[in-house]
Amino acid sequence: MALVQPASRRPADSSVLPTASSTPAAGETGIDALVGLVAGDMERVNALILSRTGSDVQMIPEVANHLIGSGGKRLRPMLTLAAAGHFGYGGDGHVRLAASVEFMHTATLLHDDVVDESDLRRGKPAARMVWGNQASVLVGDFLLGQAFKMMVEVGSLTALDILSDAAAVIAEGEVLQLSAAKHVDTTEETYTEVIRAKTAALFKAAAEVGPVVAGRDGEERRAFADFGLALGYAFQLVDDALDYGGSSAALGKRVGDDFREGKVTLPVILAYGAGDDAERAFWKRAIETGGGADADLARALDLLDRHGAIAATLARAEAHGAAAKAALARLGPSTYRDALAAVVDFTVARSH
Amino acid sequence: MALVQPASRRPADSSVLPTASSTPAAGETGIDALVGLVAGDMERVNALILSRTGSDVQMIPEVANHLIGSGGKRLRPMLTLAAAGHFGYGGDGHVRLAASVEFMHTATLLHDDVVDESDLRRGKPAARMVWGNQASVLVGDFLLGQAFKMMVEVGSLTALDILSDAAAVIAEGEVLQLSAAKHVDTTEETYTEVIRAKTAALFKAAAEVGPVVAGRDGEERRAFADFGLALGYAFQLVDDALDYGGSSAALGKRVGDDFREGKVTLPVILAYGAGDDAERAFWKRAIETGGGADADLARALDLLDRHGAIAATLARAEAHGAAAKAALARLGPSTYRDALAAVVDFTVARSH
Repeated sequence: MALVQPASRRPADSSVLPTASSTPAAGETGIDALVGLVAGDMERVNALILSRTGSDVQMIPEVANHLIGSGGKRLRPMLTLAAAGHFGYGGDGHVRLAASVEFMHTATLLHDDVVDESDLRRGKPAARMVWGNQASVLVGDFLLGQAFKMMVEVGSLTALDILSDAAAVIAEGEVLQLSAAKHVDTTEETYTEVIRAKTAALFKAAAEVGPVVAGRDGEERRAFADFGLALGYAFQLVDDALDYGGSSAALGKRVGDDFREGKVTLPVILAYGAGDDAERAFWKRAIETGGGADADLARALDLLDRHGAIAATLARAEAHGAAAKAALARLGPSTYRDALAAVVDFTVARSH
Repeated sequence: MALVQPASRRPADSSVLPTASSTPAAGETGIDALVGLVAGDMERVNALILSRTGSDVQMIPEVANHLIGSGGKRLRPMLTLAAAGHFGYGGDGHVRLAASVEFMHTATLLHDDVVDESDLRRGKPAARMVWGNQASVLVGDFLLGQAFKMMVEVGSLTALDILSDAAAVIAEGEVLQLSAAKHVDTTEETYTEVIRAKTAALFKAAAEVGPVVAGRDGEERRAFADFGLALGYAFQLVDDALDYGGSSAALGKRVGDDFREGKVTLPVILAYGAGDDAERAFWKRAIETGGGADADLARALDLLDRHGAIAATLARAEAHGAAAKAALARLGPSTYRDALAAVVDFTVARSH
């Protein structure tokens, strides 16, 4: 199974970052350093993932491996491994927690595809297109159950508390996003709450359980939690900007998936807020009735550009990136800390 | 919110048993004794359930309370309360674990309705018909997350182990059931594995965490686990018999939902196994192509009767009921133990 694959062409897939095996462009070395540092641990995570998707019920490994084996950079579990590695942790609890984090993420993707009625995931047909919505729902549930089993095996009630809280928050954020869908007058505050819950909460939890499994608490734990949260915000903001082509429309990626699905992300919120009556009427019609004709997308891109909505979204991402690096600066020096700082740079830079 | 309501007219809803407030028929006193014994604790469970479905995201309490407040006897959480009560447990851990068990069950129902494309649940429109499949998937995930949070709060790694294992097993069973759907040549062995996983595992876990939270292990824990597992088997077997009218077709309940959905339950497996070529061809066509015309259902009921398939299914339920009572007999005497024994009698008797 190829666990590391070239980046997908679909920007809406938050998990896919360019990989060590793809031709490096400027800034990509950031993630390479992290990949190299945790390579040994990551092999153990991958082996654990494979063994934990095993089941006599044939459909389970089929569906799970379709998604888990289809690329994705495994950034979230790498955060757990690096945060534990920073403290020189030598056990195997971080491997189980990292696999749990990846299972939670994968379960979310499986359920998201059902909720969004997505056809594609990581450039392949979504699992629901191959095995049906039913299998996607149930295999997601199975992975969630396995995630909790692995967490319990680690035996840290604090880590369990952090990750179970994240699970509830993520689901709450997904429901909030569903409620806000196609409402073009969604506020930036609501949007921020959605991305905190659906994306930043798992980044935070993934980073925070690193010090916890290494027996650290207090300021060191808080610093990693703050780092993960800020990185998660930056990651999602960039993702949402990239869905409209980022700072350049020439990335060759498919643009406008969020637009076609009626998702109200920050670029739209900002352009809507800055628009005149005619523009607001356009956004309202385009987002609420959906469809997303090419002419509509062209006009949307023009309005986003005219009001500087992408640049403003990326500026917020950069601010969160700076906050993430400030959190890292509260920790003692280590190669892990440096590699995580480079990941922040890369996360923000991938929009250029 | 009416937490106890008259029994639904839909036999396929496994959670609905006749209640204390409905006119008692023979055997119903069995559950009344349990309801009375745990009434005080159950009020605390209900208050906890209400508070834990609270969310600023309006759709969450709406969807959750639609289902949680719509009846259902809360048999599973009562098992937890009674099993802890048997040991004179005086803390509040059993209340949290009981609420967790109910949330796990409710999450399963929400996801099941999406998987089965059900229109009705407990005689009301299924949540997915009111709020959509998306909300059912995501609110189910939210309840699962809250369930784990409550378990973590109890602080028992053993209880967490039991319940997280059940969560994974339940999902695995649901996938197995999905794989077996419309396959009329499903073996009794596979069927038994499905009901063990999708129903009996949660009954088992619900009963087993009672002694665990009360600080008991070993034989007492095993006795409650064995009791819960056997009761769960009996419960599901009776449910599957009732879907074809039980031992009498005159219950006034809607009959044949499983048949129409192409679910291969034990009555069908037994009649198929005992049938001649023409009968097997009939079952194959009726189950695999689905639809379930009235004439097909009439013929199915006739074949089930001719081969004694309902009686044979109920005989298996009675055997599991006997096993459940034998497990209880391994425990010391208590009013809780007697009330649980009466629940076994009632569970088996409700088919007559």
